[in-house]
Amino acid sequence: MHAEPFPRWAVPTVNGGRLNAHLEQLHAFGRNPQGGVSRLAYSDADRDARVLVQQMLRDAKLDVSIDAAGNIIGRRAGSDPSRPSIIIGSHIDSVPEGGNYDGQVGSMGAIEVAQTLGEAGITTRHPLEVVIWQNEEGGLWGSHAATAVLTEAELNTVSRSGKTIREGIAFLGGDPAHLERTRRAKGSVAAYLELHIEQGGTLDQQKKQIGVVEGIVGIKQWEVTISGFANHAGTTAMAERRDAMLSAARFTEMVNRVIRATPGRQVGTVGRIQAFPGAPNVIPGKVVLTLEIRDLDGKKIDTLFARIKTESAKVGAMNDTTFEFHQFTDNIPAPTDLRIRAMVAASARELGLSHITLPSGAGHDAQDLAQICPVGMVFVPSLKGISHAPTEYSSPEDITNGANVLLHTLLKVDAAF
Amino acid sequence: MHAEPFPRWAVPTVNGGRLNAHLEQLHAFGRNPQGGVSRLAYSDADRDARVLVQQMLRDAKLDVSIDAAGNIIGRRAGSDPSRPSIIIGSHIDSVPEGGNYDGQVGSMGAIEVAQTLGEAGITTRHPLEVVIWQNEEGGLWGSHAATAVLTEAELNTVSRSGKTIREGIAFLGGDPAHLERTRRAKGSVAAYLELHIEQGGTLDQQKKQIGVVEGIVGIKQWEVTISGFANHAGTTAMAERRDAMLSAARFTEMVNRVIRATPGRQVGTVGRIQAFPGAPNVIPGKVVLTLEIRDLDGKKIDTLFARIKTESAKVGAMNDTTFEFHQFTDNIPAPTDLRIRAMVAASARELGLSHITLPSGAGHDAQDLAQICPVGMVFVPSLKGISHAPTEYSSPEDITNGANVLLHTLLKVDAAF
Repeated sequence: MHAEPFPRWAVPTVNGGRLNAHLEQLHAFGRNPQGGVSRLAYSDADRDARVLVQQMLRDAKLDVSIDAAGNIIGRRAGSDPSRPSIIIGSHIDSVPEGGNYDGQVGSMGAIEVAQTLGEAGITTRHPLEVVIWQNEEGGLWGSHAATAVLTEAELNTVSRSGKTIREGIAFLGGDPAHLERTRRAKGSVAAYLELHIEQGGTLDQQKKQIGVVEGIVGIKQWEVTISGFANHAGTTAMAERRDAMLSAARFTEMVNRVIRATPGRQVGTVGRIQAFPGAPNVIPGKVVLTLEIRDLDGKKIDTLFARIKTESAKVGAMNDTTFEFHQFTDNIPAPTDLRIRAMVAASARELGLSHITLPSGAGHDAQDLAQICPVGMVFVPSLKGISHAPTEYSSPEDITNGANVLLHTLLKVDAAF
Repeated sequence: MHAEPFPRWAVPTVNGGRLNAHLEQLHAFGRNPQGGVSRLAYSDADRDARVLVQQMLRDAKLDVSIDAAGNIIGRRAGSDPSRPSIIIGSHIDSVPEGGNYDGQVGSMGAIEVAQTLGEAGITTRHPLEVVIWQNEEGGLWGSHAATAVLTEAELNTVSRSGKTIREGIAFLGGDPAHLERTRRAKGSVAAYLELHIEQGGTLDQQKKQIGVVEGIVGIKQWEVTISGFANHAGTTAMAERRDAMLSAARFTEMVNRVIRATPGRQVGTVGRIQAFPGAPNVIPGKVVLTLEIRDLDGKKIDTLFARIKTESAKVGAMNDTTFEFHQFTDNIPAPTDLRIRAMVAASARELGLSHITLPSGAGHDAQDLAQICPVGMVFVPSLKGISHAPTEYSSPEDITNGANVLLHTLLKVDAAF
């Protein structure tokens, strides 16, 4: 049933100059004084940038539409209309003080791949869709709405723009009352491929050009409440204190120790903390902080958390304080498709690009797509691993390399799936 | 030159029933739902309670006035008009969710001592002044204005009531434009004596009835800024992190270790903390927290801080973070007068009351008075050391004992000074 693989000597090369020029054009929307972009989903900058993106898709000879969820879709027919689509894409919204590459490299890269195919006169067997997912940074809303049923509570969530998700979808030209028209059923998509910057420092440090993504890590987050007894910082002897702040300190150090005690790429973070009452002259009676654990293996996350919970009881007992854990996030790990992973690696090899396999520590729309179809991801290096900041940087060469790997992989998937 | 000590058999006993009834009467002003009081300085509750206090002073046959700083003064002539006054007193304002004893025991105790002397027909050699200092909890403002020159910036400080210190003084019937009329020069007061609840748990734990206060501890406070590098909590490997939160944790634990490593009653506290940007999924690039050290020995505070600063450089070096310290409070220690200390102890002994010598970890108006005259303080037990909370409690017996010790000490000071 498989078609002959597209001969590698016949695969065209993307126009790297045009690709990087497109990125430059995009940077004008929401540019911030630090040189990055603040292009919050549902902001005017987001809406204006989407007008440009739709023009680029039309220039690439794609049929452009906005789906009910507000995602931008550029479609190109395949030679076999009975086949499900292959989707390539990413997002163009940013965090508040973001950079010029996160999401944008994959979005411009996908458009470039489609345009290159068109210019080379290559028609894939599967229909090809370039999708620019809306509001990735706020919680993968566009891909989520396209693959799952949004609850009323989710639609009423207020995004950082101040608009609810429902209002934001309407603002972008979607139809929040008819999201079912957008929804992709399991099996209705042949594959999803996404090019993205790594956002971590592994490729940069190891001087590798391409990252073959083995999956998107699972994320669990807890609010941890540490209870002691608030008292006068002048009159309460050190030995008499039930200092919740001291327990919070011991907890934070212990989390670091437990996470690092096991080999692997798991990470654990205490990112937010508040002490109550929070005065310099009062021993904190309560501290609330957040714990986050990420790993590609969901069981490993659970094992590490169990160890942290056990250790925290010991930490608490040292000064008569107690720990309570309330989980508020549970993103399950999303492994990429093994066949696609091999195709990404093979594509890098044929292009003479060095590569390694690594997990994605950050979330991506691909994790939502992984619920309905096989997915693959291609990473390009992030200078010093910096991301979500104006100093985020990936070189034009690396971006062009990534787009070429995406193109090669797409043709392999098209032949094999 | 010294008079004969007043014979101990001739010293009258305070009226404990009346003293505790006065405390009950006072509790009605600003009573809060938790059973304590919220009697912020310059609030209506404060003003109304001061009307009651002035009536009590008149009932004790004292000449009542409000000084330019808004302090209430009840005066009784001495037998030798050339002598400077002995002052006894405390405060009746409270913290926002305060208890019924802090300041109030010493205020009602001082009035009771004066009334007892009057009823017994005893005239001291020195004029006697009962002073109810205004706004102790907000920063010893009444005693500060009576002993030092308030700057414009200090007078413009906004108190927790919302009023500036200047407005508050006027609200209480003082004259903020003529504070010089109130100011007491060094040597113009023979001695200052204050009865107060301990606010710590030492007397309660050791089952002692009277605390002979050896002085009021010095307080230094710093804002500590820890700088690392904010980065993505999913994509940044544990070994690559410059996590300011981890350094804050190690710092807090180290402070506890350094403070406790030396024998003594010194205390060190981290009471407030904030992580930036403060999101569960971002490694904090900056943490700002407060450090407070208190001890009766100013040099010891400096030595401990120097050690903490040295250790913090080591803590910072562990993960490439840096520490900066900005001191914002420097209250010098105020030792009590050695002779008065001995008189307090002797008074406890003659009354058959157990006693120990201890420092005051909390600040008191006595520390301002210590700048211009010899001071002494008498502590009575606080149940479980709880203070600045509605559950603050001292027993009627302990309160009566404290007032009797104050009375005996006053007569000894009057004879000796």
